[in-house]
Amino acid sequence: MHFSNFATRYQKGSGTVRLMEDLGRATTAKGAICQLGGGNPAHIPEVEAILREAMADLTADTQAFGKMVGEYDAPGGNVAFRETLASLLTEQFGLALSQENIAITNGSQSSFGLLFNSLSGQYADGSFKRILLPLTPEYVGYFDVGLAEQPIFEGRRAEIDLLPQRQFKYRVDFDSLKLNQDHGAVCVSRPTNPTGNVITDGEMEALRAACREQNIPLIVDGAYGLPFPGMIFTPAKPFWDDNTILLLSLSKLGLPGIRTGIVVANPEVIQLIQNNNAINSLAPSRIGPTLLTPLLQRGQLQSICDELVRPYYERKRDYALAVIEEVMADLPIRIHKPEGALFLWLWFENLPVTSETLYQELMAQGVFVLPSRPFYPEVETPWRHQEECIRVNYAAPDESVVMGLTVIAQVVREHFQAAVKRLKETDH
Amino acid sequence: MHFSNFATRYQKGSGTVRLMEDLGRATTAKGAICQLGGGNPAHIPEVEAILREAMADLTADTQAFGKMVGEYDAPGGNVAFRETLASLLTEQFGLALSQENIAITNGSQSSFGLLFNSLSGQYADGSFKRILLPLTPEYVGYFDVGLAEQPIFEGRRAEIDLLPQRQFKYRVDFDSLKLNQDHGAVCVSRPTNPTGNVITDGEMEALRAACREQNIPLIVDGAYGLPFPGMIFTPAKPFWDDNTILLLSLSKLGLPGIRTGIVVANPEVIQLIQNNNAINSLAPSRIGPTLLTPLLQRGQLQSICDELVRPYYERKRDYALAVIEEVMADLPIRIHKPEGALFLWLWFENLPVTSETLYQELMAQGVFVLPSRPFYPEVETPWRHQEECIRVNYAAPDESVVMGLTVIAQVVREHFQAAVKRLKETDH
Repeated sequence: MHFSNFATRYQKGSGTVRLMEDLGRATTAKGAICQLGGGNPAHIPEVEAILREAMADLTADTQAFGKMVGEYDAPGGNVAFRETLASLLTEQFGLALSQENIAITNGSQSSFGLLFNSLSGQYADGSFKRILLPLTPEYVGYFDVGLAEQPIFEGRRAEIDLLPQRQFKYRVDFDSLKLNQDHGAVCVSRPTNPTGNVITDGEMEALRAACREQNIPLIVDGAYGLPFPGMIFTPAKPFWDDNTILLLSLSKLGLPGIRTGIVVANPEVIQLIQNNNAINSLAPSRIGPTLLTPLLQRGQLQSICDELVRPYYERKRDYALAVIEEVMADLPIRIHKPEGALFLWLWFENLPVTSETLYQELMAQGVFVLPSRPFYPEVETPWRHQEECIRVNYAAPDESVVMGLTVIAQVVREHFQAAVKRLKETDH
Repeated sequence: MHFSNFATRYQKGSGTVRLMEDLGRATTAKGAICQLGGGNPAHIPEVEAILREAMADLTADTQAFGKMVGEYDAPGGNVAFRETLASLLTEQFGLALSQENIAITNGSQSSFGLLFNSLSGQYADGSFKRILLPLTPEYVGYFDVGLAEQPIFEGRRAEIDLLPQRQFKYRVDFDSLKLNQDHGAVCVSRPTNPTGNVITDGEMEALRAACREQNIPLIVDGAYGLPFPGMIFTPAKPFWDDNTILLLSLSKLGLPGIRTGIVVANPEVIQLIQNNNAINSLAPSRIGPTLLTPLLQRGQLQSICDELVRPYYERKRDYALAVIEEVMADLPIRIHKPEGALFLWLWFENLPVTSETLYQELMAQGVFVLPSRPFYPEVETPWRHQEECIRVNYAAPDESVVMGLTVIAQVVREHFQAAVKRLKETDH
């Protein structure tokens, strides 16, 4: 078959595609596998029990079940859910929101495509604008959605603050931010995927101000953040205003299989999403919103986040840190301060191979992680740090975390030892 | 906010958007409403009971439920479902299919966008190709998905065979088909949305041959068709070959709320969809495939289609025809031979107003139908017939069907009577 130019971007293996294929290979691989790649959340038994009960209630109700599965929803998404969520967010943000500020999509990844392409590329005034990422590394899933022929992302290198206990933290370099009319939007994930960083309230405030000043929208990807699922282990304020496009999701709450993304924005953006849904999907799925509405109405969602989700990942994070303490004590490792999400971002300074090579070697031993380079937009000026890190998902069962981190330690240790040996040989 | 050129197509109200908004208005309108617009399938109690039971089984199974909601599926869609469906289709088509011939999307509407844009628009050899619709009117949902700046659809006017009992049937005009290298694909819905036509086996055979000869893929939109949901009331053979892209859906089986589309094609096309899913959605929803797999495995799906779905719509069709017989006996009406799907396509020859006007007038009286013009691609040469029809969804409750058709009869009658009166006045 012959395909159009449009199709070629889906024919060649993009970064996202390759990583997804590698992940897929893990599920069919022989031998023991440590799945520390991907972003799948944990199965938290107490949370799943609540969701199961909610589904059982719906299934027991002939009419409610019939409506959920048997009727197309509104193109903007379930109205009852949007209204309920709007009142919750009104309380949280102290701004009056209505259902016209909320749209549902089939997962945040679908929201990204529409929003990034709507806020970058060719403009009617002849300009070509890009999405500015003020703090790279940033989520790999952004980089393949652009439909324009030129790259639509521009990344800024993070400042690195070295911290005690072999930790470090990325910081926005406001001096080199240089926000201007070449930028259609600014985007940050908070907590950051892949690093587990939580951009501080101060940094957020400064970004907001810079965006307002230039009249450029600020996209905040809150897939792991506030107000839900609330996987943040450090003080941080949720916020929204009419220049902010806040992206939320039910995935990290434990529902990645049902594909529910949520966009909170001004009505103009919501209308755009609604029209896109109508044209490209008729309507989004009705399952997630229907399942969550009663929990929202009973105020149960907040307690799920505060009492079950956050403590669960906090424990998992502490466990992974303790394992690293034990198995990597002798290695030149730094860990990004793990303030949120479900990742550890490990930095092996002066690693003698690229993290891509490390990634391949680990995969060959059944340990799946993600290499660091794909988390930077292609056009960003290369720097050595881009090749020295890996992302580890610590939501996996404890035994996988131990085994995986042990294998990582061995492989990294061998590389450093070999380098030392080579150095000595050169000395002779 | 400033938006890119890409966004403008989602800012203005397209045909699809307008129709969806009108439908949305119906759900919030005051007074009695007859919802005969849209394509929502009926709530068939026996079918919903089976689906409810399947969901109850899943919900009772901690592990199965956890997997369904709590894990991202493969980018190409659920592998167990695809394997099970592949064996079923292997039996049906007499060709060996595997899971590599099947991909899952979040509904057929999402499949359309990717496939139409991949098989039309700009090609590497400099050519611009279009999707040929050999038998218009054709599904309105196709027309807004094109990303190219020029129109991507080209329609061929149907031949009209007049039949007894005030019926007619559209037929492919093979003389004017003129399939050539300006066409990237040929597409038909079977049964046809909006007409309820079922393109004959002979016509399908001829289309297949013409497509093969020109090496152009044939897209068959089987949303209402074969092998499931099987809403076809006339003898028709399902078919597939490696030059055919067959689009199936779980929506008309009674599951529009869960958004499950299925593509059956050669592995090259499946890979394209899989990569598109990875980039633009990570993975499709896991609900539909998980829910349906046990029914497929037990061979229950076929009996649901044969014993519940088809007879149900056949009865509804007969009921709507009987109502028309009664309330439109005096009107110059012709009905497209209703061979499948859930629509009646009513043709009021020489209707003194356009069907758009009729549509608006009916809406003002609480009766929602769809006008005929939007079912033709914009570029097709206008002909009067394009403005003389309406689509009526007869899946609504019987009382809505009666009331709606009665109002339609009244409004149409008044137009014809007024025209006669005007004519008489002119005579004097």
